[in-house]
Amino acid sequence: MLNPVEHIKVKPKMTVSTLLKEFGNGSFTARRLYEAYQILSLMSKDCSCLKFLTVAGAAVPGGLRFIISTMIKAKLFDAVITTGANLTHDLLEAFGEMHFKGNTYVDDSDLEKMGLSRIYDVYVKKESFLTLEKKLRVILEDLPGKTMSSKELLNTLGSLISDDYSILKTCSVMNIPIFCPTLNDSILGLHISMYSRNSDFKVDLFQDQVELLDLIWGSEKTGALILGGGVPKNYLNQAVMAAGKPLTYVVNISTDRPEYGGLSGATPDEAISWGKVKRESYRVVVPCDFTVALPILAAALIEDGEV
Amino acid sequence: MLNPVEHIKVKPKMTVSTLLKEFGNGSFTARRLYEAYQILSLMSKDCSCLKFLTVAGAAVPGGLRFIISTMIKAKLFDAVITTGANLTHDLLEAFGEMHFKGNTYVDDSDLEKMGLSRIYDVYVKKESFLTLEKKLRVILEDLPGKTMSSKELLNTLGSLISDDYSILKTCSVMNIPIFCPTLNDSILGLHISMYSRNSDFKVDLFQDQVELLDLIWGSEKTGALILGGGVPKNYLNQAVMAAGKPLTYVVNISTDRPEYGGLSGATPDEAISWGKVKRESYRVVVPCDFTVALPILAAALIEDGEV
Amino acid sequence: MLNPVEHIKVKPKMTVSTLLKEFGNGSFTARRLYEAYQILSLMSKDCSCLKFLTVAGAAVPGGLRFIISTMIKAKLFDAVITTGANLTHDLLEAFGEMHFKGNTYVDDSDLEKMGLSRIYDVYVKKESFLTLEKKLRVILEDLPGKTMSSKELLNTLGSLISDDYSILKTCSVMNIPIFCPTLNDSILGLHISMYSRNSDFKVDLFQDQVELLDLIWGSEKTGALILGGGVPKNYLNQAVMAAGKPLTYVVNISTDRPEYGGLSGATPDEAISWGKVKRESYRVVVPCDFTVALPILAAALIEDGEV
Amino acid sequence: MLNPVEHIKVKPKMTVSTLLKEFGNGSFTARRLYEAYQILSLMSKDCSCLKFLTVAGAAVPGGLRFIISTMIKAKLFDAVITTGANLTHDLLEAFGEMHFKGNTYVDDSDLEKMGLSRIYDVYVKKESFLTLEKKLRVILEDLPGKTMSSKELLNTLGSLISDDYSILKTCSVMNIPIFCPTLNDSILGLHISMYSRNSDFKVDLFQDQVELLDLIWGSEKTGALILGGGVPKNYLNQAVMAAGKPLTYVVNISTDRPEYGGLSGATPDEAISWGKVKRESYRVVVPCDFTVALPILAAALIEDGEV
Repeated sequence: MLNPVEHIKVKPKMTVSTLLKEFGNGSFTARRLYEAYQILSLMSKDCSCLKFLTVAGAAVPGGLRFIISTMIKAKLFDAVITTGANLTHDLLEAFGEMHFKGNTYVDDSDLEKMGLSRIYDVYVKKESFLTLEKKLRVILEDLPGKTMSSKELLNTLGSLISDDYSILKTCSVMNIPIFCPTLNDSILGLHISMYSRNSDFKVDLFQDQVELLDLIWGSEKTGALILGGGVPKNYLNQAVMAAGKPLTYVVNISTDRPEYGGLSGATPDEAISWGKVKRESYRVVVPCDFTVALPILAAALIEDGEV
Repeated sequence: MLNPVEHIKVKPKMTVSTLLKEFGNGSFTARRLYEAYQILSLMSKDCSCLKFLTVAGAAVPGGLRFIISTMIKAKLFDAVITTGANLTHDLLEAFGEMHFKGNTYVDDSDLEKMGLSRIYDVYVKKESFLTLEKKLRVILEDLPGKTMSSKELLNTLGSLISDDYSILKTCSVMNIPIFCPTLNDSILGLHISMYSRNSDFKVDLFQDQVELLDLIWGSEKTGALILGGGVPKNYLNQAVMAAGKPLTYVVNISTDRPEYGGLSGATPDEAISWGKVKRESYRVVVPCDFTVALPILAAALIEDGEV
Repeated sequence: MLNPVEHIKVKPKMTVSTLLKEFGNGSFTARRLYEAYQILSLMSKDCSCLKFLTVAGAAVPGGLRFIISTMIKAKLFDAVITTGANLTHDLLEAFGEMHFKGNTYVDDSDLEKMGLSRIYDVYVKKESFLTLEKKLRVILEDLPGKTMSSKELLNTLGSLISDDYSILKTCSVMNIPIFCPTLNDSILGLHISMYSRNSDFKVDLFQDQVELLDLIWGSEKTGALILGGGVPKNYLNQAVMAAGKPLTYVVNISTDRPEYGGLSGATPDEAISWGKVKRESYRVVVPCDFTVALPILAAALIEDGEV
Repeated sequence: MLNPVEHIKVKPKMTVSTLLKEFGNGSFTARRLYEAYQILSLMSKDCSCLKFLTVAGAAVPGGLRFIISTMIKAKLFDAVITTGANLTHDLLEAFGEMHFKGNTYVDDSDLEKMGLSRIYDVYVKKESFLTLEKKLRVILEDLPGKTMSSKELLNTLGSLISDDYSILKTCSVMNIPIFCPTLNDSILGLHISMYSRNSDFKVDLFQDQVELLDLIWGSEKTGALILGGGVPKNYLNQAVMAAGKPLTYVVNISTDRPEYGGLSGATPDEAISWGKVKRESYRVVVPCDFTVALPILAAALIEDGEV
């Protein structure tokens, strides 16, 4: 009845997917990561499940842009919910700008003088945001003078980008809707705000909710890989609750903890009481930085998809 | 030159403000809390500073509603930025509903069957949200058929509430603008979304940005007490950066850590590189649940205000 | 049946003990702190309970030396278990040396050159350890050439100190046994190791276990305030388990979390499975830095004791 | 001068060592893990460096027993410092007993009745400890009636074990000294304590310090992989400081944070001020559960060793 902890085995040249299975022979976060794989594996094979990816936190500066777009290309998800910040940084790279490896032993006043802004151990040039502004302006001026949801705008933006690893472009090419409930809370949103002040072009973030609910109502089951917490996590939780389609599969990779009461650290168990997650569901929290956990999961899931 | 750690002294009947000063004789989080007090004390006396309070996390279910409204009544802040969730829970209590002390050793499926939703160790009745919906509907139907910012809507909502400890009402009475960049990500936002679908009443969250920038442009200096992280923290950071008025005073009470790169855990030092915080500024992070840290600070600050 | 969250009230000149009771009207860590108070209050009135204080982490550099000795003087505990590091720092102050308020924005190479060693935001002079060595040597040379437990040695050391706020002296004066299972892992232990190399004076840390078990076997019930985790927590847990006297009261103030499997973050619930904590017990974890949590609890408990 | 974040790439069948190098193209914990690999790689090639492995936390129940013994067999370390708890669990498996995969949604009172003790998501049978006691007793009775250091005892114990994946046996076979400064704080220590009460067999934990210092004095340089914090981390830090041989290479995998002042979360930078780490040194903290981080590092390091 009880299964022994058989210990994690490693050997030279072992593959990531083999290691992930070995994690199932250990305990604590290693076993959580294996459980996450099992759940995402099941979810990926469930054709009746509407699959979400939500992304909060600095995923693009964190170096996960390739992996996220690759997972979307591999059809692991049907819809994406993310923050304005991640899309700003995705656009910035799509426009040819870059993030740089920085360090944390630095005088931030010096960086400021050098025109570098810091995201923990990442630098981004201030001038990159000027490039973003200019190129975005050209795009905005070409948009029709009407009210759009964030989803509609982002699909349009994605279609105008030529960078194959852009999350926005990938979603557009793959016809995957991308929702951004915090578009207003970003550099991208700031420019939209400024531009739409004297234009008939407007973004209505409340319209997205209706579109998201419509999408969910049309589904049989729902499931999600939730990276971090934040608004993307809550926004999805609330939508599936409102639509009466609680999550059947849920993997949350998050370093937050539940004891302080914030939604980012809230467990999928707690979510059952709200009708956000099904009583009978596959669920796990992986208490790990997603820059480590996601690549491992992605490597194995993509490999499975190729078989 | 070096000051000794003189150790924290306690005695019977000591006041909270005395203890807070004693925390300055210790180290680690105790000393951070005292530094936070020093900074907020300086800020409160600086008439040329536009003072912000930002609130993320479950502050209302956490039991901080009285304290937040009391701090606003004491004129410690000139503007508030918070989440849709906190305002939903504030409204819910304003409409006569309640949060309940729950426990965490519970089967969430059982709670769900009993109609109770859980926020860590807090329960809220599902039916309370129906009451909210009904009362809100009546209010929404009376609103003019026009487009508002969240600030304008929240001011109107606040003026219609009779509960003296409501954050919304207090802001309205004290004429303190309250911004809610994530209004769309809440039960309150869900109802606004549904109602505005077939109405000329709309909320434009991008309009808030312009209004917030106008407010900041008119100020000489800026400062903030930042509870938790989330969108409220980022939204303020970005606005003071865009307005070229980086924070001179900043106290962030947050349990997040910087190493994972998310904005919630980002330090005020990092913010200097962005022009969100001034080089020459008073700044501290208090790594503590705000349900403990805020009441201590509030008790001392209100006491000072009465002198 | 359900009790409402009545919100934490603060007002000018309020006492710490009043605030602590107000914390019971909130949620999350605030309520945990109130529950800790309730449990310690019950424990302090239970004459049949053998009451332990365990202290890991940098309590003395943290500024808690006065509070710990004051709680011992107030007879809140019958025995203490702590680390060699805390006793080293206690002795250092007893010998007239000091800890200094430092900051964390510093080049540690510079500090090293200046002869200052850093404990997060605390500095201690290297020369203070030379003073410690010299004064300790004199004491050691006067000790009888026999084998002692850490408890016996620490009682002797305490009796030779004149500083009233020394934890060692207070335990000695109050006749409270103090156990130090990690005496070998400290500067104090290093000197003992060097001295006993060429002397008949020896410290046998295994003898303590027998003495601790004897103490526990003689008790009716056991209870503990566990500051941090570490060896002191485990050592007590193991002793009450081995003695068949699991804890009836247990308050653990710790910032560690359970998900990574370490003992420091292990819950009192898990401890039930081991027979370390009673099934029917009063237990709580307060996820807070003890430099903030302990002074609040101490102020209220000492006040109760004076009534 | 600045290197771009080139994003972490994953593909089917990729090896763990390739992923680890890809982590260097990302940020946050992923990049830390790559830096850890670089440092350990350098250290492993430095013949003049005395290489330590310190292990705190529940590494054996966590499923890392195979990996730790494999790393020792691969000659990656010259000495090991660990806790009594890990050695107890290593012995328990060496004697044919097992750890089991448990879950955390469980009533610990029920487990206790079933004779199962829980370590987060791991169960161990109470009767396994009886087996341990019996087999250990036989071994102890055969030991010479003299005083040993923990190092000497553990080497002897290791030589009597037939399980090839035992950490104790592996150290004994490879002639790697293993120090256990907290041997007294474990079930193993409890039995030693009981047995030595009425025997001439004694373990002197202060003798280890002398032996450890002798080992370090004989080295040119020192370096360490520090798993978790606890006594093993401090014990090593203190020994290299006392011996005047601060660490040239240091990788600390730990989920603790520095802000609360405890040694487990203390940074290698802080350690420079103490003379525990060299000014010019290779150092990194990986803020990750070691059940995930260690297998990744081990797979790559062992692979390198085979080339």
